Amino acid sequence: MATYIDELQFKTRYAETDQMGYIHHSIYAQYFEMGRLELMNKIGISYKQMEKDGFILPVYTLNTKYFIPLTFDETIRLKTFVKYLKGVRLAFGYEIYNENNQKTTEGEVVLVFAGRDGKPIRPPKEFVDKIKTLL
Amino acid sequence: MATYIDELQFKTRYAETDQMGYIHHSIYAQYFEMGRLELMNKIGISYKQMEKDGFILPVYTLNTKYFIPLTFDETIRLKTFVKYLKGVRLAFGYEIYNENNQKTTEGEVVLVFAGRDGKPIRPPKEFVDKIKTLL
Amino acid sequence: MATYIDELQFKTRYAETDQMGYIHHSIYAQYFEMGRLELMNKIGISYKQMEKDGFILPVYTLNTKYFIPLTFDETIRLKTFVKYLKGVRLAFGYEIYNENNQKTTEGEVVLVFAGRDGKPIRPPKEFVDKIKTLL
Amino acid sequence: MATYIDELQFKTRYAETDQMGYIHHSIYAQYFEMGRLELMNKIGISYKQMEKDGFILPVYTLNTKYFIPLTFDETIRLKTFVKYLKGVRLAFGYEIYNENNQKTTEGEVVLVFAGRDGKPIRPPKEFVDKIKTLL
Repeated sequence: MATYIDELQFKTRYAETDQMGYIHHSIYAQYFEMGRLELMNKIGISYKQMEKDGFILPVYTLNTKYFIPLTFDETIRLKTFVKYLKGVRLAFGYEIYNENNQKTTEGEVVLVFAGRDGKPIRPPKEFVDKIKTLL
Repeated sequence: MATYIDELQFKTRYAETDQMGYIHHSIYAQYFEMGRLELMNKIGISYKQMEKDGFILPVYTLNTKYFIPLTFDETIRLKTFVKYLKGVRLAFGYEIYNENNQKTTEGEVVLVFAGRDGKPIRPPKEFVDKIKTLL
Repeated sequence: MATYIDELQFKTRYAETDQMGYIHHSIYAQYFEMGRLELMNKIGISYKQMEKDGFILPVYTLNTKYFIPLTFDETIRLKTFVKYLKGVRLAFGYEIYNENNQKTTEGEVVLVFAGRDGKPIRPPKEFVDKIKTLL
Repeated sequence: MATYIDELQFKTRYAETDQMGYIHHSIYAQYFEMGRLELMNKIGISYKQMEKDGFILPVYTLNTKYFIPLTFDETIRLKTFVKYLKGVRLAFGYEIYNENNQKTTEGEVVLVFAGRDGKPIRPPKEFVDKIKTLL
């Protein structure tokens, strides 16, 4: 059984460039976030609804490797997959590919399942079950 | 009696540049926001506290004129002043000056005093009185 | 003869929200920029190529009216159209509609056609002709 | 001999918050960047000048641990230090402290010394010597 890999395709924005002519490295964390929210949506987890229900998923660790810079007006493909769910920690992996099908970037983000007060709590069984369908 | 003009001095950030080599025009709205929060702080209005008390100040209109581009690593001076407070509307004016003392930018932001639900409501007398000290 | 109106549909990002729960008002300038670049692409003007050819289009004025806040995870429609091209000035108009088909936002951005040094110059005939097809 | 640790103090911005009420995790990379540019300035390395001289320092890896969320209107202290300079790679370490003197965040950024074309090149002796004063 293989891990499900979601793919999101979108264009880099001009506002995301810096004066090096690259997409600024701080922006990739936004891309990763878009990837995981999209992936969760696909399996019926609405993060918007989750927050209304009193749960949040703050980021605990962010690791990114930038191999090849992204630039303005590129149509990129972001691959997102769940690495693990252990207790309150949920880890996503990411890969970005440019128009030449080169892997430009790798990332990992570990989130913590928490209540509205920011205190970690065990995710409900329904959430765990849905995430497990991706592993 | 003259309007009180607050001055905030800070450095532009590298992350704020775009590939033209200019501070991206979307960033100035953040500068203006810093200016008015600082100005309100000076007269004893903590926006942080205001939100806790159930009031918000969403932006209704934003107008900006960019005469001279700002670039990375400039120490700029942002002048902020209250233009008017009429009913639920509070208008701030802005001017940015670069290191050569040139006026680079002019702005105006009209905010709406509102409750947590986003519905406009009359600001409390204490708020009005404090703002009036600036006019 | 009617002005051509381009429509771009996309989702708001979580990273674009602020603690009011609204898309931060500074982000809309990024949306408008996406709209005009897309519109120019449709008539064969690549802004990416333009910059390589030594021309830039810095923003001279930005005016925005925020009627209804945008929030996270909304699929919005951005309408973009050319208002006028007069000498070195190119003006775009914008309207944003939410999922309930309510007009949430109106904007106008005036750009200046300039050389790589930022000095305004008349746009080449080819550029003018293409823009005029939109009017 | 101890590593030199630079300290930069600044306020979080409202625009940097997200609807969780936290400073969005993508923003910290901007803080780290401010820290290392400030540190380099202190030892006579102007990154602005470096770029004019044809050198850039793109980010190769970014690692961040978020222990405690930062929120709006906090005055934070960012500690920046050089971890190593090995060939073309320059690594900085970061720690952020909040007003209660709690360590909220840890980061590491590895940069690559490169020419204007993005190809890695050995940094000039003058650059190496200045960085070594920090180790």
